[in-house]
Amino acid sequence: MAHENYDLAALKARLGGIRTEDNPALVRQKSRDFYWYSPTLKRQLDAVNGDIVAFPTSEEEVLSILAACFALSIPVTPRGAGTGNYGQAMPLAGGLVLDLSGLDKVLEIAPGRVRAQAGAILADIDEACAASGQELRLHPSTYRTASIGGFIAGGSGGVGSITWGGLRDLGNIVSLRIATMEANPRMLHLTGEEVQKASHAYGTNGIILEVEMPLAPAYGWIEAIIGFADFGEAAAYANALGEQDAILKKLISVIAAPIPQDYFLRHRKYLPDGMHVVLAMVAPVAGAAFESFTNRWGGQMLFRSDLLGPEEAKGLPPLYELAWNHTTLRALRVDPSITYLQTLYPFPDQLALVERIHAELGDEAPAHLEFVRFDGKVTCFGLPLVRFTSEQRLEEIIARHEAMGIPVFNPHRYTLEEGGMKQTDAVQLAFKREADPAGLLNPGKMIAWEQADFDFDTGRTYLFAGLERHAAGSGV
Amino acid sequence: MAHENYDLAALKARLGGIRTEDNPALVRQKSRDFYWYSPTLKRQLDAVNGDIVAFPTSEEEVLSILAACFALSIPVTPRGAGTGNYGQAMPLAGGLVLDLSGLDKVLEIAPGRVRAQAGAILADIDEACAASGQELRLHPSTYRTASIGGFIAGGSGGVGSITWGGLRDLGNIVSLRIATMEANPRMLHLTGEEVQKASHAYGTNGIILEVEMPLAPAYGWIEAIIGFADFGEAAAYANALGEQDAILKKLISVIAAPIPQDYFLRHRKYLPDGMHVVLAMVAPVAGAAFESFTNRWGGQMLFRSDLLGPEEAKGLPPLYELAWNHTTLRALRVDPSITYLQTLYPFPDQLALVERIHAELGDEAPAHLEFVRFDGKVTCFGLPLVRFTSEQRLEEIIARHEAMGIPVFNPHRYTLEEGGMKQTDAVQLAFKREADPAGLLNPGKMIAWEQADFDFDTGRTYLFAGLERHAAGSGV
Repeated sequence: MAHENYDLAALKARLGGIRTEDNPALVRQKSRDFYWYSPTLKRQLDAVNGDIVAFPTSEEEVLSILAACFALSIPVTPRGAGTGNYGQAMPLAGGLVLDLSGLDKVLEIAPGRVRAQAGAILADIDEACAASGQELRLHPSTYRTASIGGFIAGGSGGVGSITWGGLRDLGNIVSLRIATMEANPRMLHLTGEEVQKASHAYGTNGIILEVEMPLAPAYGWIEAIIGFADFGEAAAYANALGEQDAILKKLISVIAAPIPQDYFLRHRKYLPDGMHVVLAMVAPVAGAAFESFTNRWGGQMLFRSDLLGPEEAKGLPPLYELAWNHTTLRALRVDPSITYLQTLYPFPDQLALVERIHAELGDEAPAHLEFVRFDGKVTCFGLPLVRFTSEQRLEEIIARHEAMGIPVFNPHRYTLEEGGMKQTDAVQLAFKREADPAGLLNPGKMIAWEQADFDFDTGRTYLFAGLERHAAGSGV
Repeated sequence: MAHENYDLAALKARLGGIRTEDNPALVRQKSRDFYWYSPTLKRQLDAVNGDIVAFPTSEEEVLSILAACFALSIPVTPRGAGTGNYGQAMPLAGGLVLDLSGLDKVLEIAPGRVRAQAGAILADIDEACAASGQELRLHPSTYRTASIGGFIAGGSGGVGSITWGGLRDLGNIVSLRIATMEANPRMLHLTGEEVQKASHAYGTNGIILEVEMPLAPAYGWIEAIIGFADFGEAAAYANALGEQDAILKKLISVIAAPIPQDYFLRHRKYLPDGMHVVLAMVAPVAGAAFESFTNRWGGQMLFRSDLLGPEEAKGLPPLYELAWNHTTLRALRVDPSITYLQTLYPFPDQLALVERIHAELGDEAPAHLEFVRFDGKVTCFGLPLVRFTSEQRLEEIIARHEAMGIPVFNPHRYTLEEGGMKQTDAVQLAFKREADPAGLLNPGKMIAWEQADFDFDTGRTYLFAGLERHAAGSGV
């Protein structure tokens, strides 16, 4: 698809009253996400640009846009709020960027569930659900800006995963309404395990237009920071807190010194030098139990949101904006040379593996753990910061993890497979054949579609041919 | 305390307007619980009788009763609804039975918590909480008759434990108000880990008068029965369902054929001969995910409450009344020779241990598993039915379990220690010294108090001396 010229004039004629923009500055802005967390992706994708952006405000407009692009063989890359980190919303083959932020309605709220349009912002959904005492089970740290559709298309879990597992778990997405990319686009309704056909597919095999998500009770969560002089103690405490079945939690993060002290600037006064910290969000009803438990472990309660005066609370970001990939973001803002990895420490060896890898890597890769439920057990993901020197060294660090039995979900890759399970997802591939037979949706992200014989075992990085288009400047 | 004569006339004089009864039939009725599930306890405790029953309706009346009994050295055994199975509410040394069913008020309902008097019936608490969309996290199968105070004083968990663990877990009891047994009884407020001083103590070290419990969202739970031709498959499916973090559950029980067919009479038509069944309560929002998951496992959906017509649903007991100790009760009603055990299959070997013990015991002890969260992992308790032949054989069966590494919480013992951890609970003993210095509360149930040098390692059964009183008929 490289070097192709798209007939934008014909497209505009077909789209009639639907709002589009081809102002280069705006198109460039809408052609990127937070890919720049990765120096590798920054190098590879910096020149990526779409040709036009469409701003539909209804399902009907989306279907018209898809039909028009199908007729003209123009690629379509869907986009929510653009808060992804892997180029998910970046149009590698140019074409049309489908900005879904105009489809932002919360459609229905019932006990235990909410139905919303894909472009609805997570925090706005929760605001709408608040009157019923409910909120989303899971959200990324970009809660206040990310869209629900983008989260489902590219996220994995986050805040809430310590109780509910991840988006991949059956039941964390109730149903999806998906538009196909065909001459006459259809709307499909996926439920039960069918949602896995299109979730975490970066919009490569259908455009998520409407979602139905389970809700959990909304509490005024206690935000706490607990300090430990010893990092291993902090990790062991966090793991044990995760296993306290009766203490309802929404977040348990462990962050090694000096990361909190160096980068959590607005919480700085609560963070004594040298202390490793655990961030926890706990339901208020568990307050006394949480305190007893923390005392047993000798944890030092450095911060508790429910004990702050209103004056003191002012200006502090919510605790989840110190966690998950906001930890990385806060570090990056202070030191642009920092990047990160995404790892899984498999149960039951998680604490030993954490200790082993960090003993080896030292301050080159300060520890950051996020405790979650994974296949019914408590374990942790790692989002270690990496003091970046070269792509080669980054690859070495990844290889060291894998050699120890710590899988890496590589955030320095823009394809589904390389950032994920490093193998073809047969279900998603089959669904793409059905829902995007011409291969026009978000080209370059699903290797299985682009290059069926790609061998994941070589360790070679996939390079989408269409990227050449951008290297040569605008391909239009 | 055996053969003691209590001055009931003086007691009545002191109690003034507080309602008491010494009609022998009523006293006898109020002196028992469901101890007769155990042939051993039936033999040991059948003659147990109090001397008088008091029916307080306020905290003040309870304190007056305690002060009067303290002054006259009359033992006091508290009682809720009498649904316990271990003689918890039976006055081994005679004296006064303190019926707390008159303290049944629900005092306060807030997001995530409820405060109620100890005598409130569990189902009534939930009815009061329903308007706020909430319900108790945990309840025994005697939900519709048991009191919250009795549950805390002698229960361990039950329906809900697959999500929330047990009452022993920090956070499943928020706080307790406890009356001490002294010349001037005091009210103590226990919170955090302090609640463990008095929970599951059978009222031996204080009288629970008020409780504060966490609440969970109330859903119209889907009740399902899933059939498997192979018992091991049923158990493995149940375990895996337990580990599905995103499918919110309230119950997962596994019951081997022919128990369901022989004893679940009102559900009989849903239960094909020879099928082993899994009972599950699942949140409606997870319905489609649950169905996908069950199909993957090849489970046969025999019954789903949400698909019944109102006519068909009529006359069926709630599913939890087939589970936990109601399984035993239903079997006992048909075959009085049946009794049961309580076991724990420790993680991660639960499925192998289940297979091993039941391969050995066969139809003498048909399998009944209750899946729970235990220390953060999914595993199962066993409540195997036992086709009783003799106490000696029962002891052999228990010994076989323990030899395989399957702890038995012996339901054929009336003491805290022998039914529990088989060791002194130093915290509860210390609290008894503080709250019941004269040892008048529920005598004979805490070995550590009665006989400090009792050696739990001998395997010898403790025999409370006070029981002789009943053997000789009424001791009064």
